[in-house]
Amino acid sequence: MPETIDEQITIEKTKDPKEIPADDDLDFGRLFSDHMFMMEYESGKGWHDPQIIPYQPLEIDPGSSFCHYCQVTFEGMKAYRNEDDEIMLFRPDKNAERLNNSNRRMCMPELDPEFFIKAVKTLVDVDSDWVPSSEGTSLYIRPFIVATEKYLGLKSSDSYKFLIIASPVGSYYPEGLKPTEIKVETEYVRSVKGGTGAAKTGGNYGRSLLAQNQAAEEGFDGVLWLDGRERKYVEEVGAMNVFFRIDDTIVTPSLEGTILPGITRDSVIKILEDRGEEVEERKLEIEELAQAYRNGYLQEAFGTGTAAVIAPIGRIQWEDLNMEINDREVGPLTSEIYDILTGIQRGRIKDKYDWTDKVK
Amino acid sequence: MPETIDEQITIEKTKDPKEIPADDDLDFGRLFSDHMFMMEYESGKGWHDPQIIPYQPLEIDPGSSFCHYCQVTFEGMKAYRNEDDEIMLFRPDKNAERLNNSNRRMCMPELDPEFFIKAVKTLVDVDSDWVPSSEGTSLYIRPFIVATEKYLGLKSSDSYKFLIIASPVGSYYPEGLKPTEIKVETEYVRSVKGGTGAAKTGGNYGRSLLAQNQAAEEGFDGVLWLDGRERKYVEEVGAMNVFFRIDDTIVTPSLEGTILPGITRDSVIKILEDRGEEVEERKLEIEELAQAYRNGYLQEAFGTGTAAVIAPIGRIQWEDLNMEINDREVGPLTSEIYDILTGIQRGRIKDKYDWTDKVK
Ligand SMILES: Cc1ncc(COP(=O)(O)O)c(C=O)c1O
Ligand SMILES: Cc1ncc(COP(=O)(O)O)c(C=O)c1O
Repeated sequence: MPETIDEQITIEKTKDPKEIPADDDLDFGRLFSDHMFMMEYESGKGWHDPQIIPYQPLEIDPGSSFCHYCQVTFEGMKAYRNEDDEIMLFRPDKNAERLNNSNRRMCMPELDPEFFIKAVKTLVDVDSDWVPSSEGTSLYIRPFIVATEKYLGLKSSDSYKFLIIASPVGSYYPEGLKPTEIKVETEYVRSVKGGTGAAKTGGNYGRSLLAQNQAAEEGFDGVLWLDGRERKYVEEVGAMNVFFRIDDTIVTPSLEGTILPGITRDSVIKILEDRGEEVEERKLEIEELAQAYRNGYLQEAFGTGTAAVIAPIGRIQWEDLNMEINDREVGPLTSEIYDILTGIQRGRIKDKYDWTDKVK
Repeated sequence: MPETIDEQITIEKTKDPKEIPADDDLDFGRLFSDHMFMMEYESGKGWHDPQIIPYQPLEIDPGSSFCHYCQVTFEGMKAYRNEDDEIMLFRPDKNAERLNNSNRRMCMPELDPEFFIKAVKTLVDVDSDWVPSSEGTSLYIRPFIVATEKYLGLKSSDSYKFLIIASPVGSYYPEGLKPTEIKVETEYVRSVKGGTGAAKTGGNYGRSLLAQNQAAEEGFDGVLWLDGRERKYVEEVGAMNVFFRIDDTIVTPSLEGTILPGITRDSVIKILEDRGEEVEERKLEIEELAQAYRNGYLQEAFGTGTAAVIAPIGRIQWEDLNMEINDREVGPLTSEIYDILTGIQRGRIKDKYDWTDKVK
């Protein structure tokens, strides 16, 4: 267990605030809010010096271990403005927990989960003007930790920086939910049992670019990853978890240590089960999917993740087999789940799960 | 093919040179020489602005993609001072080639290989006082490339920085070659077919720390990695390639895309073959190794890499099987190869391979 952090977060406000773009002009992840959170770690001393400061470049020694060995973990979460003009987070305790799991896998120091949430809330509160309000918009929050020891030997660093930055983001679907087209990746591997697939660490993402770029060149929006050992089990779609509706049962790959345990995934499972749907978390062979498709049982498919919330899948190409799903239209369950989840996140639907967490 | 770079390298000398430590006080990778090389890349513009500047912190925007997604590649090489007081590199063309291979795997821009060598030589020449001269010492050179685009979307960056830093290093074996003790890693995986094991990219290293730390806690110097798919083929030892002498034949794992194609590995194979040894590059099952051990045929084992050159292995623990090799003494072939290779690197032995490359 990480030690609790009692220190106060000091706040230094910017003297030079940026112009906040109109909701319609929001992009994803290019423009950052006026402030950032920063805290230091040293072996023996623990986490210390939590502060909110104007968003600014980091001074990184070129010998810092993270520039070479990628001892890096991160999280992704959003702050939403609800219809009562309150700012809400969605299950931030889950991000705190997952960050600590990632840290353990990467030999990095854990964080007091309550302090993590406090740091996120403090930053969002200071930059509350940056939380947009139109449907589909939010403030994307990126907590991350990097190893800073100035040493080229291969070992866990003795010092770290924990940072939180935030970027206002526009709607993922300005024209409504739109199905994506993906290909099954049969050459490249994202993750393998015994590796770091269940951790949110940068190496998993850099490693995935080549497959993604090649798929884009072939006209696809992304890839469906197969497991690294047997190359036959479905794992994730791009950087999202994946769900299929097969013969009225919902199937999603089980957590075997190779896929990221998505918070959206977990929420979708709970909502589905509550609605009385049959949900199976289990190994799913790509061949089984193809068989279901051939027999007319593959009804819907969608990805889940914080960025898109729900990403309907309209087409899956596996070698020579072109699987068009639900006539490339958004499926009924897909769109219902999207409405329920975004409804809870924005406070339109009563949150009986206690998932939303007010910033103030 | 990368475009050639015609620009001159500008040189700005430090006004505040550091004290150069005595050869006996040298550590590895903590102290860096007075200068560093830096060059920028932008899409459309290519590599530009090559410069040597005083060693200094980088200004890195916290939204830079490499802080999150580890689009990072690097190299490791050494400059040696020979007995005629000349400074020599060892096969720098191989580092240039491997860096470009890594860059392709990581969707990063390639570098003109001749320019790469010129950049390394220019830095080493400016910091030539930092190249130590005692036996076993050298200037360790770390070229690396990081993605700098300020964007949290998952895509290949549009901008990069190429840097070269250098650190004087002491002898790896101040008291002579010393065998290491390693355990066969059966839980964690370094790399898998379809992944990035053959590229020198940071994610491979951060991912390996947990196994290494656990092995250290159990009293081992490091781990012997098995393949990620079948968990039965020997791949590498720590961050080194590995060789075994079995019944008078030398066996080393073949390059199947999961292990780093080491330059020391390649050099050792050539030297051995030239001496008339039988060298087999092939898949090697850990069970075959155990069988050879049980039958008394496992004669020697050693790792190869730029840092240690040759690292004799005295003991390998595989589950319950404790394999002591050559009575935990350095084997005769191991020490001979070490003498030949370091002899060529330091100019004591005639370099009939044309591997050494004078800085001036
Ligand atoms: C690889 C990967 N899988 C799945 C997800 C979905 O996780 P979450 O629902 O917590 O955003 C993410 C993050 O968004 C991811 O990076
Ligand atoms: C994973 C890994 N394997 C092997 C090697 C050996 O390569 P080289 O002999 O080129 O130093 C290295 C680098 O030193 C490495 O990082």
